[in-house]
Amino acid sequence: MKPHPKREEIVYYLKCLRERIIETFQKLELRHRFERKSWKYQHQGGGEMAVIRGECFEKAAVNWSGVGGDTFPMSDSKGAFFATGVSLITHMFNPHVPTVHMNVRFIETEDKWWFGGGYDLTPMGFPYVEDRDHFHGVARDALGDKLYQTFSKNAADYFYIPHRKKERGMGGLFFDHFNSGKFESDLAVWKAVAESFLPAIMPIYEKRLQQPFMVDEKDQQLHARAHYAEFNLLYDRGTKFGFQSGGNPEAILCSMPPLVKW
Amino acid sequence: MKPHPKREEIVYYLKCLRERIIETFQKLELRHRFERKSWKYQHQGGGEMAVIRGECFEKAAVNWSGVGGDTFPMSDSKGAFFATGVSLITHMFNPHVPTVHMNVRFIETEDKWWFGGGYDLTPMGFPYVEDRDHFHGVARDALGDKLYQTFSKNAADYFYIPHRKKERGMGGLFFDHFNSGKFESDLAVWKAVAESFLPAIMPIYEKRLQQPFMVDEKDQQLHARAHYAEFNLLYDRGTKFGFQSGGNPEAILCSMPPLVKW
Repeated sequence: MKPHPKREEIVYYLKCLRERIIETFQKLELRHRFERKSWKYQHQGGGEMAVIRGECFEKAAVNWSGVGGDTFPMSDSKGAFFATGVSLITHMFNPHVPTVHMNVRFIETEDKWWFGGGYDLTPMGFPYVEDRDHFHGVARDALGDKLYQTFSKNAADYFYIPHRKKERGMGGLFFDHFNSGKFESDLAVWKAVAESFLPAIMPIYEKRLQQPFMVDEKDQQLHARAHYAEFNLLYDRGTKFGFQSGGNPEAILCSMPPLVKW
Repeated sequence: MKPHPKREEIVYYLKCLRERIIETFQKLELRHRFERKSWKYQHQGGGEMAVIRGECFEKAAVNWSGVGGDTFPMSDSKGAFFATGVSLITHMFNPHVPTVHMNVRFIETEDKWWFGGGYDLTPMGFPYVEDRDHFHGVARDALGDKLYQTFSKNAADYFYIPHRKKERGMGGLFFDHFNSGKFESDLAVWKAVAESFLPAIMPIYEKRLQQPFMVDEKDQQLHARAHYAEFNLLYDRGTKFGFQSGGNPEAILCSMPPLVKW
């Protein structure tokens, strides 16, 4: 399998993006640091997790991976593949501060390539309309009305919990198999998503982290996290892809909430 | 669809079995009681949950259901169906006391009927070989060597967590699509499983509940429960059947641990 000429550039971009996010998150946490752990994929490549368990982030993970093999593990395509991406999730201590999830990925198989990714916001019991407006506003500014509409519709469809008959959270952006045939402009869209992530989330974090909370609100948060855990294990394609490709369970499941009540 | 002539007898047996189990469990709990909640199935029938959240049982559910519809929701069969069963799970406060799960079910479709069920033991961080020996010993005595070997092998295969590369717990019995063509003798086997459940678990509970534990052992239990939650959401066929048949999510997910750490 011949690598895409831009593969190396993309891998480098992802690694730098991840470092910027880690650095930005780290500033919110005074007494705890991200801990890094690398892992090897059973075929080619591997990844690095960076996990923090602190006072502001009850648990957060900002992971990079770049893996390849002879058999693409999903039904989307077949043959040899290479997949690289950054994936992150936060579970905040303060129940007024929403969970955020972001992923940007680039996938190559024998006969095609595509981009995928997005980010989405999940309040854990305490939804603030103004947070949603800010989050979606940044996404819209980054992509323009047309793409925003498509990608945010995708997110509403994808982050849906059928058995609860509701969306997982407040949505955001989601796209997969993104390939218009024009590599450079697709790459630019993908980078626009990646670059708008921190501006979308950080003002919300800086504001909500100031907010006091009560013990019963913490309890409500732990119950809300159950729905998140259900989605991740029952429906999430990333989890399925991870397990079906024989990925590292620790890296795949680091998206799970640190403490959950059912 | 013409009901099996023994359907009513089986439903009655299941309801009585459930009451005996609830009564037995209730004796371990001084200050809390099982709370009952009935639900209607979207097509025909429904069920009743009985959930306790107490000092000995951090959470336990002993449920009965009897549901029917025009389209069997799994690939095993098709057409109209009726399914009835008792399903229970315990999550104990004391980490030295194992979780137990039991299910006995009878299913009829247009052209066939079968029994299914079993019970299995899952220590949450603290496995005791003597508990396993007692639990499996009772199962073997109830079924005889040959059936015990088949059903306990089934359990070892079924209660396996692929991504963790380990069994969920210490196994027990599992069988599905049990139909030798001889209804009465199949019913007798099924009842032997049902009747041996309390003798299999209660001596373990009476013994282990006496055992003191430390805070760090509780923490270990909460982490062990994560593997249980993963199995239930990722692999369990009962959960899948429940959601695919449009079952009550509250009844399906009452098997989830009350508190879990990832």
